Amino acid sequence: MIQIDKVIVPYQLLKTAVEQLFIKWGFSETDSRSITDVLITANLSGIDSHGIQRLGMYEKTIANGIVVLQNKPMIELETAVTALVNANRAMGQLAALFSMQLAIEKAKAQGIGIVVTKDSNHFGIAGYYAQLASKQNLIGICTTNSRAVMPATFGAVPLIGTNPVAFSFPNEPYDFLYDASSTVVSLGKIEVCSKAGKKLPSPWGLNQAGKPSSDPNEILDDLPNRTIGGVYPLGGPGEDAGGYKGYGQGLIVEILTAILSGGMSSDVISNSVKDGACHFFLALDPTCFGNLKDMKARLSAYFERLRKSNIADPKQRIYIHGEKEFEKRALYQEKGIPVDVEIWREFEAICRRNQVAI
Amino acid sequence: MIQIDKVIVPYQLLKTAVEQLFIKWGFSETDSRSITDVLITANLSGIDSHGIQRLGMYEKTIANGIVVLQNKPMIELETAVTALVNANRAMGQLAALFSMQLAIEKAKAQGIGIVVTKDSNHFGIAGYYAQLASKQNLIGICTTNSRAVMPATFGAVPLIGTNPVAFSFPNEPYDFLYDASSTVVSLGKIEVCSKAGKKLPSPWGLNQAGKPSSDPNEILDDLPNRTIGGVYPLGGPGEDAGGYKGYGQGLIVEILTAILSGGMSSDVISNSVKDGACHFFLALDPTCFGNLKDMKARLSAYFERLRKSNIADPKQRIYIHGEKEFEKRALYQEKGIPVDVEIWREFEAICRRNQVAI
Repeated sequence: MIQIDKVIVPYQLLKTAVEQLFIKWGFSETDSRSITDVLITANLSGIDSHGIQRLGMYEKTIANGIVVLQNKPMIELETAVTALVNANRAMGQLAALFSMQLAIEKAKAQGIGIVVTKDSNHFGIAGYYAQLASKQNLIGICTTNSRAVMPATFGAVPLIGTNPVAFSFPNEPYDFLYDASSTVVSLGKIEVCSKAGKKLPSPWGLNQAGKPSSDPNEILDDLPNRTIGGVYPLGGPGEDAGGYKGYGQGLIVEILTAILSGGMSSDVISNSVKDGACHFFLALDPTCFGNLKDMKARLSAYFERLRKSNIADPKQRIYIHGEKEFEKRALYQEKGIPVDVEIWREFEAICRRNQVAI
Repeated sequence: MIQIDKVIVPYQLLKTAVEQLFIKWGFSETDSRSITDVLITANLSGIDSHGIQRLGMYEKTIANGIVVLQNKPMIELETAVTALVNANRAMGQLAALFSMQLAIEKAKAQGIGIVVTKDSNHFGIAGYYAQLASKQNLIGICTTNSRAVMPATFGAVPLIGTNPVAFSFPNEPYDFLYDASSTVVSLGKIEVCSKAGKKLPSPWGLNQAGKPSSDPNEILDDLPNRTIGGVYPLGGPGEDAGGYKGYGQGLIVEILTAILSGGMSSDVISNSVKDGACHFFLALDPTCFGNLKDMKARLSAYFERLRKSNIADPKQRIYIHGEKEFEKRALYQEKGIPVDVEIWREFEAICRRNQVAI
C-alpha cells in the first residue's frame, strides 16, 4: 500500500470552488455545475487520479482552445436505437452527458440505445456516465479512448490509450459499478505515485529504453511525445499471464470509439495538437428480459454468497465493484474529502491565479 | 513455452469422425454437422482446450440426460431488438447458434439485436458465435457463464465461471476476433498442461489449502466439488496488478447471462446435477454510424501501425487478435491438425467404444 499525506476538504467548499473555476473559464453556471459534479464524484469516490488533480490539464486545454467553449455536440446520424454524435471539440464532460442522455432516451423508448461520439475531449471518469443509466434502472456501459500510453503485447511503442470501460447495473443499496482501464493501472494512478514520490509496487510498464520499470517518473516522463515505453496492458508483459487480453480489450475500445465514430484512434490523438477523444455509450433496459425486481433479488443474493465466502487473506475483505466507492461517497460527503497534500497545493495555486477564493 | 508431443490429423478425417459420433449419440445429420463445426474450428484455430478434448465430457452429458436431445430452444420474451431464449437444456452449440442467428436477424432489421439465453449447456468457443455476426459485416459479441472456478479477489472459494468474452469486427483479410476468459487462463489450458504432465509457467490459482499453486493437478483436482481453491482472475491475486478487473469482468458476465436471463449463476451451476449455462449474444450493424468500407480501411491502417511498431522482445512478433487463429485455420485445413498425443488417445478410445471408424 502507498501511504500519502492528506488534507481533509469539506465537500461543499470543494464543489463551490471548482464551479467558480469553470465559470471563470467561460462556462455557464449550469455547465460548470455539470462538469464539477463529474470531477468531484471522482474525489468523493476515492478516485483521486480523475478528480481535481485534472484541473491543471483542463485549465490548459480550455485556455489554448483544445476545448472549444462555444461549440455544442450535435447528432450527425441517427436511428431509433443508435446515434453518431460529433462533439465538435466541446468539453468532454458536456459531450458525454449529451450522448449518454440520448442513449438513455432511446433505451427507454426502444429497449436499447447506443451512441458513439467523436472529436471530444477528456471526460473524467467513465463510471459517472454508466451510472447515469443505472440510476434510471437501465444497464449503462461507457468507454473512451485517450492519448496512447499502452504498447501492444511484445511491443515497445505506446499506440493504445488506457481505454477504460465502465459497466453499471441498477441495484440496492448500491448499483454494481465496474470502472477500470485496459492497462494494469490507469495513468492517473501512476501520476498519484509520482506526485507522492513513491516507487510502484511492481513494474507497471516500460521505460524510455523499452525495459520493465517500477519508477513512475521513468514511465511517465514526456510519455505523450515518446516513441518508446508506456504502461503494460492488464495481464502484464508477454502472454503468459494474459497480457494479450488487456491489449485486446484496449483494441476493442478503439474499435467501439474511434473506428465506429470515424474519429481519431489513440495514437493519432497523441500526435495531434487537439485532443479528439472518442466515446461509446450503451443503455439497455433489463425489463426486456424479465422482471427487474427479481433480477435485483437474485443479484443481491449472489453478491451475498460472494461477500460471505471464505477469504484467502484474513487481513482482507471481499468487495463487490462500486461498494468501496459508494461507501466513500457517503462518508466523504459528510466528513470531508481527503486530498493528497501535493494535489491540494496545485489546486490552491490554480484557485489563486484564477482569483477563486477557498 | 510448454512443448507437447503431437499427431497430425487430416481435417476431413477428424470432421467425419466427430460428425459420426454425434449422429451415434442421437443428433440429426444437420445438427451433428453444426456441433462438429464449432468443435473442429477450435482445433483448427489452435484452441486445443475447446476442441475434441471436450468430446469425453459431451459423451457423458448426453448419455446422462444433462443435454436433452429432443428439446429445442424457444423464445420466451421478444421485442424488435431483444429476445430471451430458453434453451430447454438442448445441446449448448445448437442453443447458441439459434440465439446468435436471432440477434443477427434483429441487427439486420433494426441495427441492433441482443439475445440472452438460459438453461443451456457448454457451447464450445464463444468466438465462433461472435464471428457468425462479423461474417455478415456486423459486430458480434458473445459471452457465457460456466461452472464456478474463479474466487473473488481476496477470496478462496470458486464462485464465478471462467466467463469468456468474444468480440468480432468484420475486416479483411481476417476479422478482428478477441476471445478470452475472465481468468488468468482458461480452465482448458490448465487441463492441457495437466494431460501433458507439465507445471504451469507461474501460479495461476489456489490449491485446496487456499495457497498459490503452479501445479495444474492441484488446481484442477475435483474443482467442481471443491469449496476452496480455483483459478485467479485476469490480473492475478490481490489488487496490485488489476486482479479486481478480471474478477469484475467475471461478474459483468454473470449479470449479462444469468441475472438478465433468470438462469443459473456459475456457483449454482456447480452445485446442480444439470449444467444450465447462460449465454449473451449481441449483433450491431456498424453502418448505423457510417461507411463500413471506410471503417475497415482505418482499422487496417491502425493495425499496420501496431504491427510495424518497434518490439520490446526481438524474438517476438506483434499480433492482432484473431490473426494467429486464422493463420492456423488455413494451414491446418490444408496440412492437417496437430493434436496432443494424450488427447488423440482419448479420442481413439471414444471412437472405439462408439463404433466410429477413424
